Amino acid sequence: MILVSTRNPLNIGAAARAMSNFGFRHLRVVNPYGPALEEARSAVGASSVLARAERLGSVAEAVRDSRLVIGTTAVRHRHLHHTVRRLEDGARLIRRRLHSANVALLFGSEKFGLSNDDLSYCHWLLRIPTDDENISMNLGQAVAVCLYELVRQAKKGPRQPERLPVASAGEIDRITAMLLEALQISGFLDLRRVADSEQRIRRLVRRLDLPARDAVIWLGIFRQIVWKLGREEKEVRS
Amino acid sequence: MILVSTRNPLNIGAAARAMSNFGFRHLRVVNPYGPALEEARSAVGASSVLARAERLGSVAEAVRDSRLVIGTTAVRHRHLHHTVRRLEDGARLIRRRLHSANVALLFGSEKFGLSNDDLSYCHWLLRIPTDDENISMNLGQAVAVCLYELVRQAKKGPRQPERLPVASAGEIDRITAMLLEALQISGFLDLRRVADSEQRIRRLVRRLDLPARDAVIWLGIFRQIVWKLGREEKEVRS
Repeated sequence: MILVSTRNPLNIGAAARAMSNFGFRHLRVVNPYGPALEEARSAVGASSVLARAERLGSVAEAVRDSRLVIGTTAVRHRHLHHTVRRLEDGARLIRRRLHSANVALLFGSEKFGLSNDDLSYCHWLLRIPTDDENISMNLGQAVAVCLYELVRQAKKGPRQPERLPVASAGEIDRITAMLLEALQISGFLDLRRVADSEQRIRRLVRRLDLPARDAVIWLGIFRQIVWKLGREEKEVRS
Repeated sequence: MILVSTRNPLNIGAAARAMSNFGFRHLRVVNPYGPALEEARSAVGASSVLARAERLGSVAEAVRDSRLVIGTTAVRHRHLHHTVRRLEDGARLIRRRLHSANVALLFGSEKFGLSNDDLSYCHWLLRIPTDDENISMNLGQAVAVCLYELVRQAKKGPRQPERLPVASAGEIDRITAMLLEALQISGFLDLRRVADSEQRIRRLVRRLDLPARDAVIWLGIFRQIVWKLGREEKEVRS
């Protein structure tokens, strides 16, 4: 589980406690507010989850070894770039992958949630089915509810077909970098000047939800294109 | 919902917040510690649930108008006098009665839970399926998890996520054609001579399962790459 830009040490502690209640072990904290992580660690009864929590400088680093990255949001409709799933439905998809892949679940800051940049690392988003009159949950409670849903025993229904193993975040990053280079050299980015073009491309590649076997092929494709574009550019100049 | 002998005003506030998140309205507080209820009420952002909360002197009074009284417990085996149900199973029974009867859900104090006397008013008990290594949950988080389970929608056939509309077969064909051209010119296909390379690429693109809005972008990307590759090839030759 990954907490991004959390401000209140009590919330970091509460998140860690819920993790230990439901048997989750790996907590990463990205850019906590000042000494929030240290304060949470020094609180009475701090769990071993907290003792082993890692502090990281960016979401990119925090999700690097994850094959499925899920963001959490209170909002229903604002996310033009991502599929939003209700917790009950999303949890089913996550459970199926929990044993075969590293899954990262991201929670944003108490006040602002996850930023667009944070969200650009996510494959899809999860929302807790709250009442329209008050959709904003306390962070520690939201974490507890999500983790509970992941461990609750679903009734045994028809078994789902097995999915192909998906690409790691590292592979996705390499593909994104290679594609960005191709877009740079080919002039694609010059034609569409927007401030957040890199974020857009990152989301674009993540939405592909590539199987691991295809990731290798796509990386090869973009590498070849970049090589060819680069070589010809040189020849044109010489 | 009934909180019995709660000590910490923050926990009363958290319980009320979870109630408002999940659409529950009636909070009763039995023998809170000193001014805990008043302090919770005066906190910033206190909900209307808290404003309308009733303070009562005994569990007997608090459950008088309820037809089903459920206690919560962290313990599995100690309850000789009561049936203990896992939250997932118990919630199904509660949901069936929610509309026809007043149901009371009791939470005990942070430190001791519900006393034997409190439990004697309960029809049966509910426990959250926590990990053996840490069964003791934070009160506000336990409330949130229980209320979530009561409102979560048991599966009635696959619910559609709020998904982006997918690309048409025509769009996929155009992307495939453009990609094939890029692979041709860049030499990618020459390096990997297999009889069915075109089919393979066609499958590769289809596995992407592209949303419609992304299809347009990818087509633009490959078109630009092909244009750039083609132009430079011409310049190299001339």
